[in-house]
Amino acid sequence: MEPPAHESSPTIGELGESAVLARVLPRLRSGDASLLGPGDDAAVVAAPDGRYVVTSDMMVHGPDFRLAWSTPHDLGWKAAATNLTDVAAMGARPTALVVSIAAPTDLPVAMLEGIADGLRDALAELAPGAGVVGGDLSASHALTIAVTAFGDLEGRAPVLRSGARPGDLIGHAGARGDAARGLALLFAEARDAAGEPDAARAAAVRDRHPELVGAQLSPRPPVAAGIAASLAGATAMLDVSDGLARDARRLAEASGVGVDFRSDALGADPLIALAGAEDHGLLAAFPPGAALPHPFEVIGTATGEAGRLTLDGEPVDTSGWDPYSGWDGVSG
Amino acid sequence: MEPPAHESSPTIGELGESAVLARVLPRLRSGDASLLGPGDDAAVVAAPDGRYVVTSDMMVHGPDFRLAWSTPHDLGWKAAATNLTDVAAMGARPTALVVSIAAPTDLPVAMLEGIADGLRDALAELAPGAGVVGGDLSASHALTIAVTAFGDLEGRAPVLRSGARPGDLIGHAGARGDAARGLALLFAEARDAAGEPDAARAAAVRDRHPELVGAQLSPRPPVAAGIAASLAGATAMLDVSDGLARDARRLAEASGVGVDFRSDALGADPLIALAGAEDHGLLAAFPPGAALPHPFEVIGTATGEAGRLTLDGEPVDTSGWDPYSGWDGVSG
Repeated sequence: MEPPAHESSPTIGELGESAVLARVLPRLRSGDASLLGPGDDAAVVAAPDGRYVVTSDMMVHGPDFRLAWSTPHDLGWKAAATNLTDVAAMGARPTALVVSIAAPTDLPVAMLEGIADGLRDALAELAPGAGVVGGDLSASHALTIAVTAFGDLEGRAPVLRSGARPGDLIGHAGARGDAARGLALLFAEARDAAGEPDAARAAAVRDRHPELVGAQLSPRPPVAAGIAASLAGATAMLDVSDGLARDARRLAEASGVGVDFRSDALGADPLIALAGAEDHGLLAAFPPGAALPHPFEVIGTATGEAGRLTLDGEPVDTSGWDPYSGWDGVSG
Repeated sequence: MEPPAHESSPTIGELGESAVLARVLPRLRSGDASLLGPGDDAAVVAAPDGRYVVTSDMMVHGPDFRLAWSTPHDLGWKAAATNLTDVAAMGARPTALVVSIAAPTDLPVAMLEGIADGLRDALAELAPGAGVVGGDLSASHALTIAVTAFGDLEGRAPVLRSGARPGDLIGHAGARGDAARGLALLFAEARDAAGEPDAARAAAVRDRHPELVGAQLSPRPPVAAGIAASLAGATAMLDVSDGLARDARRLAEASGVGVDFRSDALGADPLIALAGAEDHGLLAAFPPGAALPHPFEVIGTATGEAGRLTLDGEPVDTSGWDPYSGWDGVSG
C-alpha cells in the first residue's frame, strides 16, 4: 500500500497508540445514547426499547477501496453510511457506532484523523444524535475499517425481508446505479498506464462527475427514510448494496413473492439501475394503496410468482454489466 | 501468509460467500438474547436492562497471532475469550458477539469452520447462553478477526476503572504471567532456522508445556468472576491484557490512588507476574474487609499515592522483560 503523502504528520508507529487516540477521539462525539463512552473496558449504551438492532461491516484496502481514489474523509464517511443504512433498513433509528481500525504503522496519523472526521460528519448529516461509543486500533499491512452499528426500534417491530405479499407496491429510496457509474468512471479514467489507481486522475474525474464519483466514494443514503417506511407500514425492507436486481431477489425469496419492475420508473438505462451495486438505497414493500413516504418512489409490484424478477413483465438479465470484471479484488 | 494445508477443503474463493456462510453459520448458535439472528440487514438483541455493554477488539495475522502457532480453533476461542473478558470487567453478563472476518480468498474453508468452532466452544465454556448474532465476511491478504461483544448489566451499575479508594483491597482472578511465559517459549523454541514461526516445533513446545502455551494461544479467563466481583461490591475493575503492572497503573490513574503489590501473592517470579501481558485476568478493587469472591485473591492494597505502583513498598520496574522485543510486529 502507498499511502498519500502527509508530510507534516507523524506516523502511527512514531506516535504510539495512546497519543494517536488522544488526537483522534476528540474529533468524535459519543452521541445521545452513550451512557459511558471510551475509556473503560467497554461502553454502556442506552436501549430504551429493551432491544437493540446491530449490524457489522468491514472495509479492506484493495477489495473495498483504494487510497488513491478515496480520501480518508471518504473512507470514514462510507464506513458510517453503509452501516447506518443497514440499521435504517430494519426501521430502526441509528444510535451508536463502534469502530475498529487496523492500519500500517507507517500510516500518517493525519489519515486516521481524516477517517474520524468522515465518521463524524456522516453521523451528523445522516443520523443526528448518534455517535461513536468505542473502538480498537490494531496494526496490519492492509488498512481495515470494521464498523458495528446500533439502532433503537422505538417500540416498532423490525421490518424484515420476509414480509412482502403479492400485490404490494415495491418502493425505492436513493440513487439507482450512480455508485456503479462512478466506479466505472474511476476504472476507466483514474488508472495510470500500468492500470494502477491514480490519485491525480481520480481527482480530475471527480471534478468532472462529482455526483457519480461521489455516489461511489461518499454515498448519501436515505437513512431517515427507514423509520418513515416503517411508520408507513412497510411489509419488507432491505439495504440495496449489491444492486436493485440482486437485492430485490433476496426480498422476493425471503417473502415468497416475485418482483415486477417498471422500466418507466428506472431512468434512462433501466439495466444499469437494476445492476449497479453500492448505491445503499432502501428497497421496501408497502401494502397496496399505501402512500409511500418521501423519498420513496414506486418502482414495481410484488407478484405471486415466488422468486421471479421481471421488468415490464419480461425476465431480467443484469449479468452483462459488472464494473469489477477484470479487477483483482484482493490487490489495490 | 502460508495457511496450513487443508487439502480436502475448498478455498473461500472457490466456494463463494453464500456457500461459505452456509457451512459456517450452522456451527454457531445465536444465543438466548437473540431476538432475530443472521439473515436480515441487522440482528435484534434483547436488552432487558434498558442498557447494554459493548466492546470491540480486532486480531490481525502477524501482529496478533501466527497461523503456524495458533490453530483456527485457538483463534476463534481467543477472539471470543478476550472480548468476553472486557464485558466481564464491567460486571456485566456476556450476551452476544458480532464477528467480522477478512480472509485471503485462498484460505481453506475448513479454517473458517475451525474459527467458528473455537468461537462456539469458548462461548459455551466461558459465557453459557451467549451466542453469535451477526457478522461479515470480507477479502484481505491478512486474516483479520474483529469481534464486538455485548453484555447485560442486569440492573447493576457498571464497574469502572475509576472507583478505587485508598485502603481498598486489590484483588486478581486468573493467570499471572502464564501467557507471556508461553509466548516466550514459542519465540524461543517454535521458530525455524530463519526465525520464522514453525508449526511442528510449536506443536512440540505445546506438548511439553500445555498450560503455558495454552494460556497464550487459547486463554481461559475468569469471565464469570466479573459478575461475582460486581455483586461483592467491587469499586473498580479492568481486564488485564497488558500485564498486571501496566493495567494496575490504568486503574490507579483513573481512580487517583496508588497500588502496592504483595510479592508473597505473586508467585515465584513477581516481576514476570507483573509484566506478562495477555493473561486476560480480572483486576479489581474491593472495600477494606470485603470477602473476595472465588477465584479472586488479594495481591495488594490501594494507597493514597496517586498513580504510584510499588511492590512491598518499593517502586516497580517491569520494563526489562518483553517477549516481543526484537519481533517485527506487522509481519507474521
